[in-house]
Amino acid sequence: MTTPELGLPMAVPAEGLPRKVRIHEVGARDGLQNEKATVPTETKAEFIHRLAAAGLTTIEATSFVHPKWVPQLADAEHLFPLVRELGAQGGTALPVLVPNERGLDRALDLGATRIAVFASATESFAKANLNRTVDEALAMFEPVVARAKAQDAHVRGYLSMCFGDPWEGPVPLPQVVRVCRALRDMGCDELSLGDTIGVATPGHVTALLTALNEENIPTPSLGVHFHDTYGQALSNTLAALQHGVTTVDASAGGLGGCPYAKSATGNLATEDLVWMLTGLGIDTGVDLGLLTATSVWMAGQLGRPSPSRTVRALSHKE
Amino acid sequence: MTTPELGLPMAVPAEGLPRKVRIHEVGARDGLQNEKATVPTETKAEFIHRLAAAGLTTIEATSFVHPKWVPQLADAEHLFPLVRELGAQGGTALPVLVPNERGLDRALDLGATRIAVFASATESFAKANLNRTVDEALAMFEPVVARAKAQDAHVRGYLSMCFGDPWEGPVPLPQVVRVCRALRDMGCDELSLGDTIGVATPGHVTALLTALNEENIPTPSLGVHFHDTYGQALSNTLAALQHGVTTVDASAGGLGGCPYAKSATGNLATEDLVWMLTGLGIDTGVDLGLLTATSVWMAGQLGRPSPSRTVRALSHKE
Repeated sequence: MTTPELGLPMAVPAEGLPRKVRIHEVGARDGLQNEKATVPTETKAEFIHRLAAAGLTTIEATSFVHPKWVPQLADAEHLFPLVRELGAQGGTALPVLVPNERGLDRALDLGATRIAVFASATESFAKANLNRTVDEALAMFEPVVARAKAQDAHVRGYLSMCFGDPWEGPVPLPQVVRVCRALRDMGCDELSLGDTIGVATPGHVTALLTALNEENIPTPSLGVHFHDTYGQALSNTLAALQHGVTTVDASAGGLGGCPYAKSATGNLATEDLVWMLTGLGIDTGVDLGLLTATSVWMAGQLGRPSPSRTVRALSHKE
Repeated sequence: MTTPELGLPMAVPAEGLPRKVRIHEVGARDGLQNEKATVPTETKAEFIHRLAAAGLTTIEATSFVHPKWVPQLADAEHLFPLVRELGAQGGTALPVLVPNERGLDRALDLGATRIAVFASATESFAKANLNRTVDEALAMFEPVVARAKAQDAHVRGYLSMCFGDPWEGPVPLPQVVRVCRALRDMGCDELSLGDTIGVATPGHVTALLTALNEENIPTPSLGVHFHDTYGQALSNTLAALQHGVTTVDASAGGLGGCPYAKSATGNLATEDLVWMLTGLGIDTGVDLGLLTATSVWMAGQLGRPSPSRTVRALSHKE
């Protein structure tokens, strides 16, 4: 049975969903940070340019963490100037991760106007990732956010382990809400609720969003960041959209966590997300063909196939 | 970072979902039919026994199609007697596919009490799969269903290409509704709505279910059968559950359609489904550990890893 080119899914809107979703593309930062291979700076710059050409309007570019901690992104100083004009001229938002004031200085010096900090909802992961307690980490971020806001930068607060933690198991909602509240209170414009180990299911997603609303944290300030470890990322995204969420994190080609490796913690693939949103008649501005071609190209650079089912299905048709 | 055993997701029910879902396990039939390797009869029997031991209560066992058409299932006559006692003693439903009256005779002679016929919503697939028009295929099934009903057998009607067709593109809803109506009118107790090429998205699912309800085809008589070609199977399942569907087809380990092959038309993996349903607090009766072990074992028999993300994640923890 030969299968001629199918094109995109038929658009059939569903009740109660947003008309437009902003995809926060994390492939170049979260994706490449978690790939074994270190990609040359020029390749990263081409990747980001191709993502922008495919219609992505928010592309997290890199991380100004100490080069020793994340060698994959040690070239932030060299990379950012190569993509900066996308922000100035093209209107593409190019947030960068900063772990502390030193990182903030480096990012601001290069002209970054959107930054992100990376907090944890659990003590175990705060300890493992930042070697701090949750509150010590929040205290570290406080001057970072304050100074960024003083310079009119947009600040995103990542919160990892919002649903489950590999050491602590299921994470109680009040614990997550407390750290979200703290990040909002210090001035974060937007929060990204991370299911870092991919264990969440749709009811849990709705429950967390509801709990945050009850604490006067409004849905428009909330993004979701799901991992496909157990194949749940897209159904969790659907639940979030049904709750009114309009910012969804995804990684081109599912970069970040090899599905063949021991820890299969891959990000939701942007292509799988775009397929669903297109089918739902939700505008993303993304050209799925260009995006898929970009992910196939990047998979070639990394020397392994994309784990995205949509990338595989579309690229096998060629 | 070591990840100790996580166990199951936290159960957080979502509003408006059923409390119980019946999984119609298709791995032994639809799965193995679409695998390249032909599995020995004794291995198939062990597979079915292990699926039953894992708590699956409806296990499609085999197909009484002409052996020439589907060589993978040419051993139906030998296999069915090896598993039949699961039905008689253990209460496991063991439906079998029958393409025509000859197949029905063979199935009934061996004591089958649940049969399934396999229709198409599109002319192109009816022609490709059955070498008949849609109406010619329906005419062929009419005496099969009538005779099965006369013997008090339960009859399931599969309907393939309900959302998109590789030759015809998107399939108009009235076309699908017409064939569903015909299958119901000839006496099918249950219909399984198939997204054979995996292109559906949640709004399309809801629209089809609504259109069928408007034609007085009630939701309890409808099952859904999604493929993960574009990673959409689980979010489509969520939409179906939200509409009240309580019968979901899935294939242990995602058997049926190799994700590395050109036509990556794999079935929804039962484990990915069970993870979501467990997280939603929906009873399935399935022991995810036993099921995963069964899929890992079967993957070993087939000589390729399971494409199920849950199977990979759980088995990598061992």
